[in-house]
Order: sequence, then C-alpha cells, then structure tokens
Amino acid sequence: MLNLPVIAPLNDAALTERLQFLIDHKTKPLGALGRLEALMLRLGLILGSEAPALHAPQMLVCAADHGLAARGVSAYPSDVTWQMVENFLAGGAAVSVLARQHGLALTVADCGVARAIPARDTAPGAPRLVSRRIAAGTQDASVGPAMTREQCAQALANGMAMVRDMPGNVLLLGEMGIGNTSVASLLLARLGGVPLADCVGAGTGLDPAGIARKRAVLQQALDANATATEPLAALAALGGFEVATLTGAVLQAASEHRVIVVDGFITGAAVLVAARLAPQVLQRCVFAHRSGERGHAHLLEVLRADPLIDLGLRLGEGSGAALAWPLLVSACAVLREMASFESAGVNGPSGG
Amino acid sequence: MLNLPVIAPLNDAALTERLQFLIDHKTKPLGALGRLEALMLRLGLILGSEAPALHAPQMLVCAADHGLAARGVSAYPSDVTWQMVENFLAGGAAVSVLARQHGLALTVADCGVARAIPARDTAPGAPRLVSRRIAAGTQDASVGPAMTREQCAQALANGMAMVRDMPGNVLLLGEMGIGNTSVASLLLARLGGVPLADCVGAGTGLDPAGIARKRAVLQQALDANATATEPLAALAALGGFEVATLTGAVLQAASEHRVIVVDGFITGAAVLVAARLAPQVLQRCVFAHRSGERGHAHLLEVLRADPLIDLGLRLGEGSGAALAWPLLVSACAVLREMASFESAGVNGPSGG
Repeated sequence: MLNLPVIAPLNDAALTERLQFLIDHKTKPLGALGRLEALMLRLGLILGSEAPALHAPQMLVCAADHGLAARGVSAYPSDVTWQMVENFLAGGAAVSVLARQHGLALTVADCGVARAIPARDTAPGAPRLVSRRIAAGTQDASVGPAMTREQCAQALANGMAMVRDMPGNVLLLGEMGIGNTSVASLLLARLGGVPLADCVGAGTGLDPAGIARKRAVLQQALDANATATEPLAALAALGGFEVATLTGAVLQAASEHRVIVVDGFITGAAVLVAARLAPQVLQRCVFAHRSGERGHAHLLEVLRADPLIDLGLRLGEGSGAALAWPLLVSACAVLREMASFESAGVNGPSGG
Repeated sequence: MLNLPVIAPLNDAALTERLQFLIDHKTKPLGALGRLEALMLRLGLILGSEAPALHAPQMLVCAADHGLAARGVSAYPSDVTWQMVENFLAGGAAVSVLARQHGLALTVADCGVARAIPARDTAPGAPRLVSRRIAAGTQDASVGPAMTREQCAQALANGMAMVRDMPGNVLLLGEMGIGNTSVASLLLARLGGVPLADCVGAGTGLDPAGIARKRAVLQQALDANATATEPLAALAALGGFEVATLTGAVLQAASEHRVIVVDGFITGAAVLVAARLAPQVLQRCVFAHRSGERGHAHLLEVLRADPLIDLGLRLGEGSGAALAWPLLVSACAVLREMASFESAGVNGPSGG
C-alpha cells in the first residue's frame, strides 16, 4: 500500500506580511519589478524565509516509453527515447547544455525505457543515470490500462525515494519519452475536464492529418479506460512511467518544502495528478514557461498557473525549466540584497 | 563636427545559411526551441561566428536630470536621481544586485545629474563611476530645447568614447533619471510618429490625473520644439543627456559589432534615435523585455522588436536587460555545445 507524504499548507500570514513589506520598501517604485515580485513572495514562503537562498538545485529528467507510440501518435520512433537518454548523459542535449550552464545537478532516471539504458560510471558533476525501471514501456492505453495499479504505485514510490535522497532545496522537472504528449493530453482531458480536441497538439511535429489520427487514438484510450476517473486510477490507466515517477517526485518535494520548477506540458501533467491528490502542491510550484504545445495553455489555466517566460518552446526535457532558472536566483538575490529606501537614503514618491 | 561611426549592414547570406543548418540539425524537433532559435541566429550573425561566445559583458547605466521634472511629470523628486546613482554604486539597487549575480561589469555614468556625483575609488569588480557631465540637468523642454546642438553632440561623443574604451563584445543598456519616461515619450511621438497619448504612461507611478498633467506638459514640449523633426534635432530639443549619451554608445557598439542588449522604454528611445540615424543598428540589438510602461509596446512595434521576456517590469536601470541576460548566454551555449542528430546518433522524424 502506497503512503503518500503529508503536505502542509503554506499559510503563514505573518511571514507573507513581512515579505510583502520588504518587497514594497525596496528602492523601486511600488510593484516596478512586476511578476518578479510575486516570485519573490512565493520563494520566500516556500523556503520559509525573508532571505531565501536556493542551493544544490536538482534537475530530475524521467524517461520512459509508451505503448501508445506504436499507434503512430508521434512524429518520431520510440527508439529516440533511449537515444536521447544517451544524449542527455553524453552532455549533448539541450537540457545537458543548460544544466551545465547553470550548475544544475542532472539526474536522468530510466523509469521504463523500452531498451534499458546500461549502467555506467560517471564523473562527479556529470549527468548521472539512475535505473528505476518498472517495465520496458507501458501497455497500449488505447486498448486498456497503460500500467497496473501496482506498477503505478511503484513508480510513485520511486519518484518519492529519488527526491528523498537528493540534496538541496529545489527540484526542477524534466522528462523524455516518445509519445508522452499523448499521455499529458489524456490526463488533462480526464482530470482537468478539458475537451480532448483542446488537449491534443503537434507534439514533436505532427502535421494536421497526424494530429487528427492522434486525437482518434487518444479518444479510444479515454473510452477504453472510461472508469479510471480518480487521480491514481487515471494515472495508472492513461499515464506513463515517467509521469507517474514525476508525480511521486512532486509530492515528495512538496512535503519537504522544496521549490518545484515545472517545465512544460508533460511535467505539468504530473503536477496536475499530484495536485488532484494534494492541492497544496501548487503552492510549492513555479511554472517556468508557456510552451508552444496546444494543450499547455489549457493545463496552465486548469492549474491557475502564471509561467515566467513565453518563448514558444516545445522541446521538453526540462529545457524550459533550465532556461527560466536564473529568474528564480534573481528573485532571491533581489529579496536578500536590494536596499530599502531607508537603508539607501533614497526619497520616496512626491519628495516624501 | 560630430563624426558618426560607420555601421556596416549584416548581410552574410552564407553564414546565415550555415547557422540555420546548424540550428535545424540539433537534437530536437525542428523549431522546438522557439524564439531562442531566432536569438541563436542573431547572436551568430552579430558576432560573425557559428560558435558565438559572449565575453566581458558591460552594463552601462547613464544617469541625468531633466528640466521637465520641475513641471511635475514624475511621482518622484529629481533628488532621487543622484540618490539612486549612489545606490547603484553602493551595490543596493536592483541593477547592482543583478549585475553582481551575472558577472556584468557595471559602469555608472553621470551624464548630467543635477547634483554632481563625487568621484571615488572603487574596488576591482565593484560598480564604477565615470563623470561625463554635460550640465546639471537639461533645460525645461516645455518652453524650448532641452539642450543645445553642441551639448547633444558632446553627449553622443561621450557615449561613443565610453564604449570605445570598454572590453568585451556585449553592451547592456541601462539608465536613471527622474523624468526620463517623459523624454522617451517625446522622442517616440516625434520620431516614431505615434500619437502622444499612446506614448505617455504612469512612469514611476502617476495616477490618472498625474498622467493627464504629464501629457499636457509633453504636448507643450512638442509644440515648443515643433521644428525639431530630424533625429539629432529632436534628440537635442526633447532628449536628455543620458539618452543622448546612450545613443552615442549604441552607435559605437553597433559599429564595433558588439551585441547590444536593450532594456526598456528609455534605452529603447535611445535605440530609436540611433536607428533613425543608422537603421543597421537594429540588426545588432537584442530587446530584453516588454515593459509595463504604456509607450513601450508602441516603441517595440515601431522598432519591429520581439523582446525575450514579459514580466511587467517598469523599473528601468537596466534591470530587464540583466534579467534577460542568461538567455543570451544560453543561446550561445546551445549553438556551440548541443549535439546534432548525426553526432549523437539520434534518429530523425518517422524513423528516418
């Protein structure tokens, strides 16, 4: 039996007030740092500090394959999943480059890639592989559940255990899995109540006919799993091993008061599942970006999320989370280091 | 007589093609890095390299006072200009904190602050003050030219000289000057052909009545300088010493093939003047952000600029340029370090 971690609500009104006072008295017109000020407040609340500092940030990229991929829901073949995992580990993928730029520790978890990723020694500071395989990919969700309830529980537990073992106070979410925009679309339709057509997009690059085929396959998956309406049932029936593992990681990170940096559509779907299990999860999340994938705008709306950047990214991997990361560092630095009107001897409005 | 630097157009079609080929063959779906890909292309073209690298980035914050401020166009008194310059130098302003975070060398230029900023010794790596004073603030533009043509030429020459002496291949633009959203509004109305009402916003925090008063004063300034329609004439009549100095800095940086990172409304107005003198300047600019100040959206449209971030910032100083800076570093890193499908052994679409 899976024990989900306890996640306390963030409701320290006194800290909220102190943080807002600090932000409002920095040497700038009221509100002039725009949405960075909301980020400052959120990071202060998550970390429980008027002088928050982020340390040892962990980028967790969960990878897996999907039975649905055999139904032609992606422009790329399933083999690209293991090939890209190798690319992450070799340092040549976008997320590898960006993690290196920003000093993010990169962990790549094989949660169920069709072709198992061989274990290897890695140098300190290099991307690290961990094997948390459930199976060699999920079953085809268009004809029945993608995974068993036991497999789903194991993936959740794996995600929780991985985060429990990580240092630092920030978790950045990434993923890889050919076919996993389909998984995210299904979870958004089922748990977010969004019409399927609004959830389905081009993924890695389908043309309009391809998107129509994908939509038809996904409708079959919803029909084949019509009774899976509760969060964990939906996750097992429609999810992927990487999404389930990420869901566990999100729950654990939230329970430990880590900052959770959400990448795009697929990691957002994991957050959706986690939030349906424990809504307080969302108080710990920072949404990095608004992606170019169709369903993401609807997902953000369902989660009432206001992402930091909007560059039309649709790569996944955690690349958007890594690109937005310096804004979180900036928000903390400004909160800690920027002077107040009083300390700097600067006049307020109207010569006051 | 002022000699403006020669700025060659960027029109290396062969390099453009090679860069686009590199970008398209990185291990990602075509176009999946969204607008970051346009940034990669632009930086490669400016720096003339398929493996561009940014080094020794220089944040130049130009400060000055404005005769118009006495007409109540700002929510803050003019004294805040010198007080904020002291805050920049002491390390307590937003731009100071962000420059420190990102390793941007910070130069603060007194271009004509009403109360001169005393010279001082600064530690290596600390913000540096340079005195390039034209006068103790401009004249009141609502009754005649803000500066003489000679003063304007001197400010332009100062900006050119400062950049000429700077190391590195990137210039980030910042500014400080109570009243300078008014200057930017006037230049946008005169040189951009935008109706004045669309150019005028709250600045540091005017209420609607304050904005109406500001608009009336600015209309007087346009009327009092009705014949100043050419770029340099308009800059002298309506501009500020910091804007004129920045205009010179932009022209010089463009001529030296530096990347120019444009902050918000006021530095954007300097770019507008520079672009009216030499349109090729715009090929060297990266627009950091879309600010919350009303006129900025119109200015971006006039300049056909597509800024990187949109956080509702309206602080100036260079804070938006500093916040967006890591995206430029990322774009170069991805271009240099990300693997191609071929080098990483990753399949392309449709199993190809």
